[in-house]
Amino acid sequence: MRGKGNKMSNDSKQLEAFDVLGDGISFVRLINTMGSDVEIVNGARVSFGKRREELDEKDKVLIQYLADERHTSPFEHVAFTFHIKCPLFVTRQWHRHRTWSYNEISRRYTSMNLEFYVPKAYRQQAETNRQASTDELLEETKDGKNIHDLVAAHTSGAFEFYEDLIKQGVAREQARMVLPQNMYTEMYATVNLHNLIHFVELRIHTGAQWEIQQYALKLLDLAEEAAPYAIKAIRKARNW
Amino acid sequence: MRGKGNKMSNDSKQLEAFDVLGDGISFVRLINTMGSDVEIVNGARVSFGKRREELDEKDKVLIQYLADERHTSPFEHVAFTFHIKCPLFVTRQWHRHRTWSYNEISRRYTSMNLEFYVPKAYRQQAETNRQASTDELLEETKDGKNIHDLVAAHTSGAFEFYEDLIKQGVAREQARMVLPQNMYTEMYATVNLHNLIHFVELRIHTGAQWEIQQYALKLLDLAEEAAPYAIKAIRKARNW
Amino acid sequence: MRGKGNKMSNDSKQLEAFDVLGDGISFVRLINTMGSDVEIVNGARVSFGKRREELDEKDKVLIQYLADERHTSPFEHVAFTFHIKCPLFVTRQWHRHRTWSYNEISRRYTSMNLEFYVPKAYRQQAETNRQASTDELLEETKDGKNIHDLVAAHTSGAFEFYEDLIKQGVAREQARMVLPQNMYTEMYATVNLHNLIHFVELRIHTGAQWEIQQYALKLLDLAEEAAPYAIKAIRKARNW
Amino acid sequence: MRGKGNKMSNDSKQLEAFDVLGDGISFVRLINTMGSDVEIVNGARVSFGKRREELDEKDKVLIQYLADERHTSPFEHVAFTFHIKCPLFVTRQWHRHRTWSYNEISRRYTSMNLEFYVPKAYRQQAETNRQASTDELLEETKDGKNIHDLVAAHTSGAFEFYEDLIKQGVAREQARMVLPQNMYTEMYATVNLHNLIHFVELRIHTGAQWEIQQYALKLLDLAEEAAPYAIKAIRKARNW
Repeated sequence: MRGKGNKMSNDSKQLEAFDVLGDGISFVRLINTMGSDVEIVNGARVSFGKRREELDEKDKVLIQYLADERHTSPFEHVAFTFHIKCPLFVTRQWHRHRTWSYNEISRRYTSMNLEFYVPKAYRQQAETNRQASTDELLEETKDGKNIHDLVAAHTSGAFEFYEDLIKQGVAREQARMVLPQNMYTEMYATVNLHNLIHFVELRIHTGAQWEIQQYALKLLDLAEEAAPYAIKAIRKARNW
Repeated sequence: MRGKGNKMSNDSKQLEAFDVLGDGISFVRLINTMGSDVEIVNGARVSFGKRREELDEKDKVLIQYLADERHTSPFEHVAFTFHIKCPLFVTRQWHRHRTWSYNEISRRYTSMNLEFYVPKAYRQQAETNRQASTDELLEETKDGKNIHDLVAAHTSGAFEFYEDLIKQGVAREQARMVLPQNMYTEMYATVNLHNLIHFVELRIHTGAQWEIQQYALKLLDLAEEAAPYAIKAIRKARNW
Repeated sequence: MRGKGNKMSNDSKQLEAFDVLGDGISFVRLINTMGSDVEIVNGARVSFGKRREELDEKDKVLIQYLADERHTSPFEHVAFTFHIKCPLFVTRQWHRHRTWSYNEISRRYTSMNLEFYVPKAYRQQAETNRQASTDELLEETKDGKNIHDLVAAHTSGAFEFYEDLIKQGVAREQARMVLPQNMYTEMYATVNLHNLIHFVELRIHTGAQWEIQQYALKLLDLAEEAAPYAIKAIRKARNW
Repeated sequence: MRGKGNKMSNDSKQLEAFDVLGDGISFVRLINTMGSDVEIVNGARVSFGKRREELDEKDKVLIQYLADERHTSPFEHVAFTFHIKCPLFVTRQWHRHRTWSYNEISRRYTSMNLEFYVPKAYRQQAETNRQASTDELLEETKDGKNIHDLVAAHTSGAFEFYEDLIKQGVAREQARMVLPQNMYTEMYATVNLHNLIHFVELRIHTGAQWEIQQYALKLLDLAEEAAPYAIKAIRKARNW
C-alpha cells in the first residue's frame, strides 16, 4: 500500500502513473506515442505530397466514417508504449492479445519488490452466469472474519515459503511456482490504435473480469490525449 | 499422480497422451495435422497443376536447402493442433509466442479437476547465471525436510483456502488468485510448422526453463510423425 | 481459354479445380484441410480427456452461439490450404490480409505459362461511388470496337515486348515490369477458419471488386465441405 | 522525371523525401517515429519506476548483446511510419511482410498522377542463378535501339489505352488491369524496429531484387536517426 489518490509520480506529464485498482500498487503509465488524428487522415488518403498537419471539418467526417464502418486500418499508424503493473491473472488475459509487443519482468531473474494484489472487498459469484461475478461485495466470511486479512495472511505465508525455498538453494525459476496468482508483475507493452480499440472492445465488455476492465478504461483515456478526435469518434460509434 | 509410464490413454494413435514432466498429470496429445513433407515441396514450387503426391530425391534436396537457408515459409502449409496440459508458469512462457492459436480452460468458469505440479526434486540456483538453474537436484532442506512434501502441503493449503473462499460466496474469477502458479491448466493449441520450429528453437535453448524444454522436445517428436523429412532436415540444419 | 464448365481437373475430389472467373484459366483448388466442426467444440470446451468425435444438438447450439457472438477463436483450429490462380490485381488485394500463409509463383524465376485475364464484357464506372462499378456491362466502344479484342491485342503486344526484352538479355526480374496487371499468378495459400471468415466478410461486401468477390464466395463453399455446421452458423449469423 | 539530386522536398527534416531509385519520382519519407535507444533498454529491463532517460555504457553493452543474440523483442517499442513511393512490383514483394501496417493509394478510386518507373539501363539475366540479374547493364538492343525509349513508349501506349477505356465508360477498377507493373504506387507503412531489421535482412540479401534493396538500405539509414546506437549494434552484429 503506497498512499491514496489517483496519480502516483509526476516528473512529467508523460510519466504520470495512474493507480488502476485503487491499492496504490497497480499502475499504468504512458511512455511514448506516435502519430495523432492527423496521421490517420494522411494514412487513409496517402495524399500526394500534400501531407496535412491539422484536421479540418472534412477530416473529422472522414475519421467518424472510418470509426463507424470499422475501417480502422489507418488507425495502425498511431501507436503507444505503456508501462503497466498488474496482477498476474490480469497479464494472463492480456497476453492472449497477440497484436501487442510485450516485455515482462522476469521472476526467473529477480525476486526484488514482490508485491501482491489484496482487495478490500470481494465480488460474489453470479448465479446465472457461471463465468461472472455480481456487484455485491463481500468483506467478511459467514463467521465474521475479514476476507482481506485472510488473503493477506495467505499471501504472506506463500511469500515466506518462497523465500525459504530460495534460502535452501532452490532456483528462483522453480521456487516462484509456489507464489499465488495475485502476484504483481510489470510490463512494457506497445500497441497500435487499431489493435488497442479491439482490446478495449473485448475487455470493457460486461463479461470481462472487473480488474482488466479498469485497465482497458484507463488505456482508452490515455490514448485520448494522443488522438482525441479518433477516440471521440470511436466512443460515438461503439456507444462507449 | 495417475500411474506410471510414458503413454496415458490410447483409443487411437492420434489421441495418445504423452506424459511430459513425468508426474502422470502433464500431457501433450496430437489432435490433428494438415499437410506433410510433400506439401512443403508443392508450396515451394507452386507447380502448375503438377502437384506431387510423393517425395523424390530432388524434393529432399529442396527441403534440406529450405531448412539450411531458413527459407521456411513453405513450412507454413503444414499445421498441427495439440491438446496440452502444463503448469501455469509454463503457459505464461508459451503464450508469449503470438503465432499460435490458443483456447485455454477458464478458471473463471470451472473449478473442476484442479491439479498441481509438485516435482520430486528441485533444481538449484545457478550462481553464474542469475536466470538459470543447475542440474544438481535438491530433495531435502538443510534440516532434513522433504521439499516435495513441503510444496505439496503448501499447495493443498492454498487449494483448501480457495475452496473455502468459494463456499463463502467469493466469485471463482477472484478466488482463483490465491492459487499458486504450479496449478495445471489445459489448452488446445494450433500452430504451423514454420512457427513450431521457431518455438522449439527458443525453448530447447539451454537458457530456457527445463519444464518448457520438455514440452518443446515432445512437440518436435510428434511433428516428426507428420512431416518426417522436414523435421530430419531441420534437426540436421540446426544441430538438434 | 481452356474449355467450358465449372470443374477443371478431377483426379480426386480434393484436387478438383473450380473456374472462378469463367474464363477456363482462373481456379481455386482445395489442397488440404485440418479439423472440422467437432474440433471447434473441443477447442471451445478444452474438455478434460473427453474429446468429442461427433456433434450433438448441444454442440450445434454452442457453434451457433460462437458465430452469433463473434467468439470465433475456436475456429482457428480448423485450417485450409488452397491452390489459387488469379489475376495479379486480385492477389494485390488478397495479400493485404496478413493472417494467411502465401507461397506465390515467382516471375523472377520463370516465364513459363504466362496467361492473362481478358473478360468478355466490362463493368461501367459507378457515378455515385468513385471506387465502384455498376452491373451494366460494356462490350463495345462507342465506335463499335469489341473491348475484349482490344484488351487481348494490348495484352499480346505487351507479352511480345516482354519476350523480346528477354531475348535481348534483360533479366526476367526487370523485364516483367512491362507486363500488365491482368497477368495471372498462382499461389499456395493457407488460412484458418476464423481468418477465412474475416476475409470473406470484407471481400463479399458490395464495395469489394467483383473478381475478388467470386474468389471469396468459392472459398466459403469449399470450406463448407470441411466444417458444414460452422459455415451454416456463420451464414445465418452474418446473413450471407 | 522531376529534376535531379537526392533530396526532394524539405519543409522540415522529418518530411524530407529521398529519391531511392534515382529517377526523381521514387521516394521514401520518414513521417513519424516512436521511442529510441533508451526505450529499448527500458523495455529490456522493465525497471521498477527507474526509467532511464539517457544511455550509459552499460546500456550500450546491453543493446549490443541483444543485437548479437537476436533477442530483439525490446526493439518492438521503437516504431516508424514511412511514406513510400515505389513501383508496383516492389510493393508486391514488400506486402509479403505481414508485420507492417499498410495504407496504399487505391487505383480503383483515382487515376490522378499515374507515373511509371523507366530505368535508363537494364540488368542482364544471370546465367547461373535463374532468379537473379548481373551487374552488367544493357542500354541498347542488339540492333541499336535504346531500351529506355522502348519501355517508355510501351508504357505511354498502355497509359493511353487505359485513358481511352476510362473515356469509354469502363470502371477504373477494371481498366487499370491494362497498366504495366512498373506503375508507381504510394503507401503509408508503419513497422517496429524488430520487424524492420528482419525486413532489411531479407531485402538487402544479394538474392533480393536491386530495386527493393535500395528501399531497404534507405529505411535503415532513416531508422538510424531515431535509434542510432541500436542500428550501429545491428550493423556490427550482422556485418551490414
